[in-house]
Amino acid sequence: MTDTVQEWQLAARPVGRPVPGDFRLVERELPTPAEGEVWVRNTFLSVDPYMRALMSAEETGSLAYALDRPMTGGAVGEVVVSRAAGLSPGDLVLSDLGWRTAAVAPAGRFTRLRRVEGVPDSAFLGVLGMPGLSAYVGLTEIAGMRPGDTVFVSGAAGAVGSLAGQIARLRGAKAVLGSAGSAAKVEYLTGELGFTAAFNYKTGPVRELLAEAAPDGIDVYFDNVGGDHLEAAIDALRPNGRAALCGAISGYHDTEPAPGPRNMVELVKKRITLRGFEVGDHADLQPRFAEEMGGWLAERKITFRETVEDGIAHAVDTFLGLMNGRNTGKMVVRI
Amino acid sequence: MTDTVQEWQLAARPVGRPVPGDFRLVERELPTPAEGEVWVRNTFLSVDPYMRALMSAEETGSLAYALDRPMTGGAVGEVVVSRAAGLSPGDLVLSDLGWRTAAVAPAGRFTRLRRVEGVPDSAFLGVLGMPGLSAYVGLTEIAGMRPGDTVFVSGAAGAVGSLAGQIARLRGAKAVLGSAGSAAKVEYLTGELGFTAAFNYKTGPVRELLAEAAPDGIDVYFDNVGGDHLEAAIDALRPNGRAALCGAISGYHDTEPAPGPRNMVELVKKRITLRGFEVGDHADLQPRFAEEMGGWLAERKITFRETVEDGIAHAVDTFLGLMNGRNTGKMVVRI
Repeated sequence: MTDTVQEWQLAARPVGRPVPGDFRLVERELPTPAEGEVWVRNTFLSVDPYMRALMSAEETGSLAYALDRPMTGGAVGEVVVSRAAGLSPGDLVLSDLGWRTAAVAPAGRFTRLRRVEGVPDSAFLGVLGMPGLSAYVGLTEIAGMRPGDTVFVSGAAGAVGSLAGQIARLRGAKAVLGSAGSAAKVEYLTGELGFTAAFNYKTGPVRELLAEAAPDGIDVYFDNVGGDHLEAAIDALRPNGRAALCGAISGYHDTEPAPGPRNMVELVKKRITLRGFEVGDHADLQPRFAEEMGGWLAERKITFRETVEDGIAHAVDTFLGLMNGRNTGKMVVRI
Repeated sequence: MTDTVQEWQLAARPVGRPVPGDFRLVERELPTPAEGEVWVRNTFLSVDPYMRALMSAEETGSLAYALDRPMTGGAVGEVVVSRAAGLSPGDLVLSDLGWRTAAVAPAGRFTRLRRVEGVPDSAFLGVLGMPGLSAYVGLTEIAGMRPGDTVFVSGAAGAVGSLAGQIARLRGAKAVLGSAGSAAKVEYLTGELGFTAAFNYKTGPVRELLAEAAPDGIDVYFDNVGGDHLEAAIDALRPNGRAALCGAISGYHDTEPAPGPRNMVELVKKRITLRGFEVGDHADLQPRFAEEMGGWLAERKITFRETVEDGIAHAVDTFLGLMNGRNTGKMVVRI
């Protein structure tokens, strides 16, 4: 137990791909909890692709990171001291007070978690957390996947993609296709996760690789990548096809906007729907998700991997590795 | 009454912008109606932007025009001879047997029309026909327009756009904005059709013109144009905005696919939905549309214009003029 906190601040707004010098690790005294506040020691920090957007000057949303302030992000921790009703020392909690070793904040910033047998605490940042809910909401609500659909997931070895593909399988997809950035990840998709087929998008034009994997086309596209993946998927989508746009990691570092899909006219011809979503809008589905996902985990129907790196000092390296695809499954930092 | 027919055939597949030499006017004997068939003399032929797509080699749908065969398209006509139950000489009928002066075909190819007081027969090709239903379906079903929405319509002086804007106004839009290709058309939109504001897209970048017309953004976009209009609309759409993609006339002549919107990542950030549609999928809404549109016409709440050209010999010129924006409102050929 310590009464200092180490926290990462954004020191400069990245131009293009972030570099270590854009960040600064700061140590400071932790304040004493006031009435209604809680002191939480973080045990796992989340790094996620969406954080790249929050670092940009163009990002004007309320979540954008301020310079020279601690960054936010998902974190799992344990209550050390509580001066609030409903939380006690030892409680496991989720918060958005990541990128730091500990936090003192009003109790309302923390959600108490119930440990799940056989599942590590870090899973609340992945399969049971925001990535899991993103996969669930995107596939079932946004894309309206139905049994018998052929589903294509890009970035399918990542935290969200690996779950989207498995949920598609469990929900009765006719075929589940995935793309990933290495042969080992492709093997993971078809060997461990039960994808019908998968390809390494670095080995050729995505359009050709997808056409080969799905000669009869696809009904649903779950997009984590954007760019040429989205263009290829529009080509492959069958009439009345639907795409859930969850992220566009391929374009997150662009300093100039990349050209968009050249085949937008296909949206009219094939009556295609593209729908962007943010998981935060769908908190109402959390209970249904937790129940269904909890059941799949208990029955061992869902597999998940985590890429765990140790130490607050490596949080930035870990994030930069994520943006380079170093992860398989959810990437977290263990404190 | 004549027993010959003049009909337009596709003589060559246009490369880029169609030219008169791509078409051929042929005269031939009209066959005698067999049992179950009807002889119809066409009085109005429709020319529509979607026909450009059907002329292309890339178009593989069942509606694509075959070379050296009469082209199809909306037509209003009168029954001359009937050998089928349910249709009698003098009946007004709608068919897809356009681009010709007359047709002999099974009765099932014709829909009997009931004339509407004060509305010309040609209206069944426009305000009461496919363009009207497109505007109605696109706005209400595809874009899910709600009272209080700010709505932007591109190509707003055209057959579909001019109706989409008026339906938006009648359905309680907060503001209706339109783009068109000349100062006279802009004046038509704000002066006659009740658009809140409009701009001539040839006078500057669409993105800037739209931002000026809609400084607070838009909720719904009705797209008849594609290209830079779609990119500008994605920029202007507010969170949870919706776009109905009805057509993309800006790209119909491209021999190389045009670059797509460079701001697709905004679809995720703003939870935007883009949805292409074809009116033919929504025939179930025809009765509801006919009733509501009929009511608006009777109460003179909907204004429509037609650009009428005379003579089968001018059908191709008329179509080429449409593709150059020579029309205001629905463009038809009177036989």
